[in-house]
Amino acid sequence: MAIRYPNGKKYAQSDQAGSTKPLKKNSLFSNRGMTLEEDINESNAYYLSRNLAVIHKKPVPVQIVRVDYPARSAAVIKEAYFRQASTTDYNGVYKGKYIDFEAKETNHTSSFPLKNFHAHQISHMKQVEEHGGIAFVLIRFSKTDELFLLPFAALYDFWLRMTDGGRKSITKEEIENRSRSLKLGLSPRIPYLQAVDHVYF
Amino acid sequence: MAIRYPNGKKYAQSDQAGSTKPLKKNSLFSNRGMTLEEDINESNAYYLSRNLAVIHKKPVPVQIVRVDYPARSAAVIKEAYFRQASTTDYNGVYKGKYIDFEAKETNHTSSFPLKNFHAHQISHMKQVEEHGGIAFVLIRFSKTDELFLLPFAALYDFWLRMTDGGRKSITKEEIENRSRSLKLGLSPRIPYLQAVDHVYF
Repeated sequence: MAIRYPNGKKYAQSDQAGSTKPLKKNSLFSNRGMTLEEDINESNAYYLSRNLAVIHKKPVPVQIVRVDYPARSAAVIKEAYFRQASTTDYNGVYKGKYIDFEAKETNHTSSFPLKNFHAHQISHMKQVEEHGGIAFVLIRFSKTDELFLLPFAALYDFWLRMTDGGRKSITKEEIENRSRSLKLGLSPRIPYLQAVDHVYF
Repeated sequence: MAIRYPNGKKYAQSDQAGSTKPLKKNSLFSNRGMTLEEDINESNAYYLSRNLAVIHKKPVPVQIVRVDYPARSAAVIKEAYFRQASTTDYNGVYKGKYIDFEAKETNHTSSFPLKNFHAHQISHMKQVEEHGGIAFVLIRFSKTDELFLLPFAALYDFWLRMTDGGRKSITKEEIENRSRSLKLGLSPRIPYLQAVDHVYF
């Protein structure tokens, strides 16, 4: 499908050196997370349409440096940089509770590396729970297409083990023991609120 | 102050036709909201530092079209467009409750135009309240530097009056009657959680 500008003009790829390329699906973060993200977005749209929950993905944080204002067209951002998110990707409200979570995929099969999380994301989820919110992570093992909801309390135990000098990952068995396994479905594709019900309500 | 790239290089303004300009504070949305936004961000940082609430501004939603990957440097977004936000700007958790709000300024002195809100923002706040969250708007009258917290329930009454063919704005007197006036302070600059306490707890 041709990429078009908002004004309808077709996008023409630059002829200059190969360092410039159009943004393709899955190109940004070397494949990680895109399918999971799409599935979660679809699930959130389903939950919203059925009036079950109001949960959205936050926009990607971007530092904007330069903007063009072409006559009679929309403003064009000509220079910007990706910023590191200071919180998690998803939040909203469900059954009166504040919900906050992050979703991560791994190609590992026997463990989940904790380097997938930043320290400030851990702090953020800790603060959320201190204020009565519900925080968790969705972890997908890509190779086997298994998905788990790991409550923040469990993640935090493993995080502290690492910062105390212990192992830098969570074993698959630990995840199985401390999380709720999710069966993938059709509507929604990722019925994670069932697991939230089971763990938190 | 010189604008610098993340790699430390100074930003040199293009010599080409005047259609390109560096992004300056207040240049993006014709002055609206910037000071109010900064004050709210500072207030949220204060609330977070005192462990009183976890409330963040969402990133500006941007549609990314083209990204450069210079060798040995961070990825540079070379073409992107502003998208309309599908929700509100701020959300988080306070005293176990989901908090969701939008902040708007006006130069009008006797009324607040409802065109400051999009229909989907109204729908979003309505959904939030249906699920047990707290939704409101902070309204600033710039000329007099007056600030009000207007609960969504009141805003929705005025919105319905408009969609039923009535006036397209809220009079200043109506705002004074249905909202909580905020006294600006130093720490935090906008003590809006006091008003939340008063209205909702």
